[in-house]
Amino acid sequence: MKNIVIVGGGTGAFTLLTGLRNFSTNNTVIVSSADDGGSTGKLRKELGVFPPGDLRQCLVGLSYADGYLKQLFNYRFEKGGLAGHTAGNIILAALEKTTGGVESAVSMAGKLLNVRGQVLPVTLEPTLFTAILNNGKKIIGEHNIDERRSVRNEAFKIKTLQLSPNSPANPKAILALKTADIIVFGPGDLYTSILPNLLVKGIKEAVDVSKAKRVLVTGLMTKPGQTDGFDSAEFVKVVNKYLGNKKLDTVIVNAQKPAKGSLVKYKQAGAEFVRPVKSLSGVKVILADLVSDMVYKKSKFDKLQRSLLRHNSDRLAQIIYEL
Amino acid sequence: MKNIVIVGGGTGAFTLLTGLRNFSTNNTVIVSSADDGGSTGKLRKELGVFPPGDLRQCLVGLSYADGYLKQLFNYRFEKGGLAGHTAGNIILAALEKTTGGVESAVSMAGKLLNVRGQVLPVTLEPTLFTAILNNGKKIIGEHNIDERRSVRNEAFKIKTLQLSPNSPANPKAILALKTADIIVFGPGDLYTSILPNLLVKGIKEAVDVSKAKRVLVTGLMTKPGQTDGFDSAEFVKVVNKYLGNKKLDTVIVNAQKPAKGSLVKYKQAGAEFVRPVKSLSGVKVILADLVSDMVYKKSKFDKLQRSLLRHNSDRLAQIIYEL
Repeated sequence: MKNIVIVGGGTGAFTLLTGLRNFSTNNTVIVSSADDGGSTGKLRKELGVFPPGDLRQCLVGLSYADGYLKQLFNYRFEKGGLAGHTAGNIILAALEKTTGGVESAVSMAGKLLNVRGQVLPVTLEPTLFTAILNNGKKIIGEHNIDERRSVRNEAFKIKTLQLSPNSPANPKAILALKTADIIVFGPGDLYTSILPNLLVKGIKEAVDVSKAKRVLVTGLMTKPGQTDGFDSAEFVKVVNKYLGNKKLDTVIVNAQKPAKGSLVKYKQAGAEFVRPVKSLSGVKVILADLVSDMVYKKSKFDKLQRSLLRHNSDRLAQIIYEL
Repeated sequence: MKNIVIVGGGTGAFTLLTGLRNFSTNNTVIVSSADDGGSTGKLRKELGVFPPGDLRQCLVGLSYADGYLKQLFNYRFEKGGLAGHTAGNIILAALEKTTGGVESAVSMAGKLLNVRGQVLPVTLEPTLFTAILNNGKKIIGEHNIDERRSVRNEAFKIKTLQLSPNSPANPKAILALKTADIIVFGPGDLYTSILPNLLVKGIKEAVDVSKAKRVLVTGLMTKPGQTDGFDSAEFVKVVNKYLGNKKLDTVIVNAQKPAKGSLVKYKQAGAEFVRPVKSLSGVKVILADLVSDMVYKKSKFDKLQRSLLRHNSDRLAQIIYEL
């Protein structure tokens, strides 16, 4: 069974896990510690806990428990003081308090959810993510970066990234990367899901000593304020910038233009189809039709922006597993 | 194994269950649907769910799961928007939403907690409890009755009780009463834990057709605004008033005066030791030393009044099981 490590967390990782579980139960997800939006951001701020949302999604993605438990973890309250929170985020926060840390909380939640595979927070404490723009201005906090509108002016584009505090990587995440057969970056938002992990002390060094294939899954659509105007080559360039000595060896690129209706909705939000670049020097490009037929509908009590379009999880998983 | 049904819910029922589980795994608790205070009241009001607090306590009391799960259910948040809520109350509320009703929520939580025995909401929807005083004034809501100060003036004492809506009893509660060997009323607050159950359509009728022994456990201390000045005989009188044709046949009365330190604290709150009456006509009186050595410390984030003194669960359970 191949040992696959996904670097990302969140909806993208959940999507890929859903497909990968048909091939293997030996999957690991490394989850960013910088999320500070929505229910997650509120719990983190009020209770000082590790941002639970991405952990929850990945735990559910790896769960072999009865359906009712997955539904419980993903249930989003609609009214009152709990509105916007998912029950799973609250359970993870309570477990962190009762068991004394995020690692034990994830382990207990994993037991409860009969998880096969591993969900690993990239650091053992929450971190703060900052984007520095070409004009020197800072945007502090992942949520603030996530909620940006599209940016056409070069001066306002993201130049570089910072993470604080300078916490060491979770030793289990380092071990997972070192012993992986395939390391997959994404799918997920480049700046707010993938790159915060690469900024953590010890992560790119672990990739450097790993014998794993290093694979990027590029986004289906650009993300306003982050990857405006990006083609797939640009995604590769940015990830390589944040990797160490070993750069990406494979990039999986969607070649399928989504339906017109979806494109129109995305356009209203300032997002465009990521143009596939068919060949690149130094990187193997795998082009495939990867848009899922399902269009995601989000709860109106979920205050975050969410992607309507998702990768086709089965097809993506198969390509990765067969690498 | 004797089939014991506790009518009460809340801390008193939890205490008795803790002792009874040493004798039997065949215990049932019928839980009032009228609670509207604290975390429970807030969830009930905001989300329209069945009051979860007493259900949670009784589920934990019957749980044979790993300790971490019981700790999770009883964990009370200390800060932010969740302050005062227990994780278990939130989980029950979410399960009621995802599974479609309180019965399925309790059943799923019971599965999660590896519960042996039954926790049965007395009705399948929340109810509103009203006390009518001697002067005709109404006190609406269990919480408002629970938080009353001590009452010396006869005009302000509770005369009678109402429950609305006039919901039928949970059929499983009726069945449990009909097939019980012993029905235990209490321990617990007379007016706010025990009697709301007897007001539900079908409950006293089920007691009437049951062959079970009918046992009351009187309180250790009076409850301000409810049982001021009560001796144990008065407890029997009031319960008998709300029963049908078949009255109590046994009453278990504590004969042990609590330590002076506790009595002083209770006195400040207007509560007194319930004077034990040694013999009563028509009812077998069992006198025993029943005060637990443990003094309960409540979380400062718990906004409700809680009893400091509890029954000695092992001794009480043994007396009941040997009836």
